[in-house]
Amino acid sequence: MTRKVLLLPGDGIGPEITAQAARLLDACRKAGLDIEIEEAPVGGAAYDAHGEPLPAATLEKAKTADALLLGAVGGPKWDALEDRAKRPEQGLLGLRKHLGLFGNLRPALLYPQLAGASSLKPDLVSGLDIMIVRELTGGIYFGQPRGIEERGGERVGYNTYVYSESEIERIGRVAFEMAQKRGGKLCSVDKANVLEATMLWREVMERLAPEYPDVALSHMYVDNAAMQLVRAPKQFDVVVTGNMFGDILSDAAAMLTGSIGMLPSASLNASGRGMFEPCHGSAPDIAGKDMANPLAMMLSVAMMLRYSLDENALAERIEKAVGQVLDDGLRTADLADDSSQAVGTRAMGDAVLEAF
Amino acid sequence: MTRKVLLLPGDGIGPEITAQAARLLDACRKAGLDIEIEEAPVGGAAYDAHGEPLPAATLEKAKTADALLLGAVGGPKWDALEDRAKRPEQGLLGLRKHLGLFGNLRPALLYPQLAGASSLKPDLVSGLDIMIVRELTGGIYFGQPRGIEERGGERVGYNTYVYSESEIERIGRVAFEMAQKRGGKLCSVDKANVLEATMLWREVMERLAPEYPDVALSHMYVDNAAMQLVRAPKQFDVVVTGNMFGDILSDAAAMLTGSIGMLPSASLNASGRGMFEPCHGSAPDIAGKDMANPLAMMLSVAMMLRYSLDENALAERIEKAVGQVLDDGLRTADLADDSSQAVGTRAMGDAVLEAF
Ligand SMILES: CC(C)[C@H](C(=O)O)[C@@H](O)C(=O)O
Ligand SMILES: CC(C)[C@H](C(=O)O)[C@@H](O)C(=O)O
Repeated sequence: MTRKVLLLPGDGIGPEITAQAARLLDACRKAGLDIEIEEAPVGGAAYDAHGEPLPAATLEKAKTADALLLGAVGGPKWDALEDRAKRPEQGLLGLRKHLGLFGNLRPALLYPQLAGASSLKPDLVSGLDIMIVRELTGGIYFGQPRGIEERGGERVGYNTYVYSESEIERIGRVAFEMAQKRGGKLCSVDKANVLEATMLWREVMERLAPEYPDVALSHMYVDNAAMQLVRAPKQFDVVVTGNMFGDILSDAAAMLTGSIGMLPSASLNASGRGMFEPCHGSAPDIAGKDMANPLAMMLSVAMMLRYSLDENALAERIEKAVGQVLDDGLRTADLADDSSQAVGTRAMGDAVLEAF
Repeated sequence: MTRKVLLLPGDGIGPEITAQAARLLDACRKAGLDIEIEEAPVGGAAYDAHGEPLPAATLEKAKTADALLLGAVGGPKWDALEDRAKRPEQGLLGLRKHLGLFGNLRPALLYPQLAGASSLKPDLVSGLDIMIVRELTGGIYFGQPRGIEERGGERVGYNTYVYSESEIERIGRVAFEMAQKRGGKLCSVDKANVLEATMLWREVMERLAPEYPDVALSHMYVDNAAMQLVRAPKQFDVVVTGNMFGDILSDAAAMLTGSIGMLPSASLNASGRGMFEPCHGSAPDIAGKDMANPLAMMLSVAMMLRYSLDENALAERIEKAVGQVLDDGLRTADLADDSSQAVGTRAMGDAVLEAF
């Protein structure tokens, strides 16, 4: 059965890295993968072309696709948009919400070839392999009521941080199962000493724990988690947390590797369908200059093959090919040091394709 | 005029580090400082003795004091308390709220003598000197409504993230003034691409900027700020942010120095009265063992002398004395490496007093 993959190039460096992913998908097709590829606009690019960051036609295509590959959205060009609903980020948030992509997997993995790129001392990060499981369709990102309004003679801005038991349980199960497949350790991050919403979070995680006797559950306050990531990141295996804390901690964790340009992510719904995208952003400053690192995007293809299309063998071939080009010393500008000459986006894509 | 200083030892290592601060205050008194010292229970210790983390008598004393010195609150002993209002943290939050201590100053300063203690590579942190200005009496910590309740057959937990223009302006001015006295750079951290409450935050910071033409204001999303702190922390001078983001980022920033046991903090109200405390927590695991580092607490005395009692000369004497003991190679267990033998809490206090 032919599966449908939807490419969403987006903004900034999105299109050029998506182009490399598309070449890789072509190669997979030649290797026997039965897929149909479509493309649709999202983010600022969609706003410019259609007046909406998530046009109805894009959402329609997304709903019928088996998997989505997203480049990146956003950029200073659209920062001044008064209407929040029109901002590029709303394209991304809309996709997450409409497709029910509640389970966000954000690995922070240190490639041994790139150990020197970390800002941390080598012994603290060598072998680093953390999986952050972030809840992606709830919490303060989507909570109602929200807005800016006049109260007592001045304006106030407000948002609602809210989680239900079933939302917490659902993401909790993803995390416990992930921990079972990995090192058996799960750290749930909250601020249960202050926030009621996270007290309930902690309670539900505790309630699930007996169902996963092979997983060691621990709890940590978010401020301490931010510290521990800097101090001794290798203490973590799987981390589970809400939407906003996950946003902050997953970026910090990714940066520990020094090579955020290497890290893919997955956002999955209840039936395992998902959206795959690099952890890095749209990097408008280097867009269109053939400078962006396409590897996180190409590794997102691997993650897609593994998680949504059940094609482990092809996923492994991609990951091996990426390892190979790193072994060969190829580095895009974000990773190049004095001893290596930077290659461009397309040349890096060529090299991966060759090694594939 | 005799000024009143209230000691609030609190829990865990709080009492033993407060004891060293008290000795230092005695030394200041002998050097001519006209103060009266009182002590009151707070946190878990107050709950154990009086059934309340912030007894009325403690609050009364706090209201009439010119400055407060707090050790630390909290510990696993009280984690199981069902009633949120009785938890040790509520003692701290209550003091902040009742005394209007909205301006929290959290320096992340790398002592050259301790450069090796950082988990970051030396060139990334040498000379690090960031001041995080955290709003402390608003935001999601205090927002209403909040709670856990039944909705549609299951429980939901919720909190409200809320800021008014006047709250934002008030902390903004503290931060702009701080930037004027320091390097002239102010980075305001928000999540204005998602949260309305922080869109208003950004707008108010922008509105204040023209009044401080000598300060360069920039904005950063909180996820990016967490990354940039890990990647290149020296890009920051003063950072201003809300209560929750400030909780997370100030701990991460403090940990960058590798010696959170060295860092004091101030929480000030509109009239400059304040509470001073170490950035580290109550460390129950080492409580009562004469192992805690008293330096953050002793430096909190210096901060108190500078910010609330206008005694710069004495503040500098304390800071010099602390520099002296570090130069002499004295290290408590948290800072000791293979080449140095750890000294205890009291011995470290002795050394500072001697150098004072
Ligand atoms: C672009 C933004 C809305 C988004 C988020 O905050 O979730 C991004 O930071 C991410 O982490 O995917
Ligand atoms: C103890 C806790 C309530 C407190 C906070 O979150 O503000 C602490 O983490 C701090 O940063 O002072």
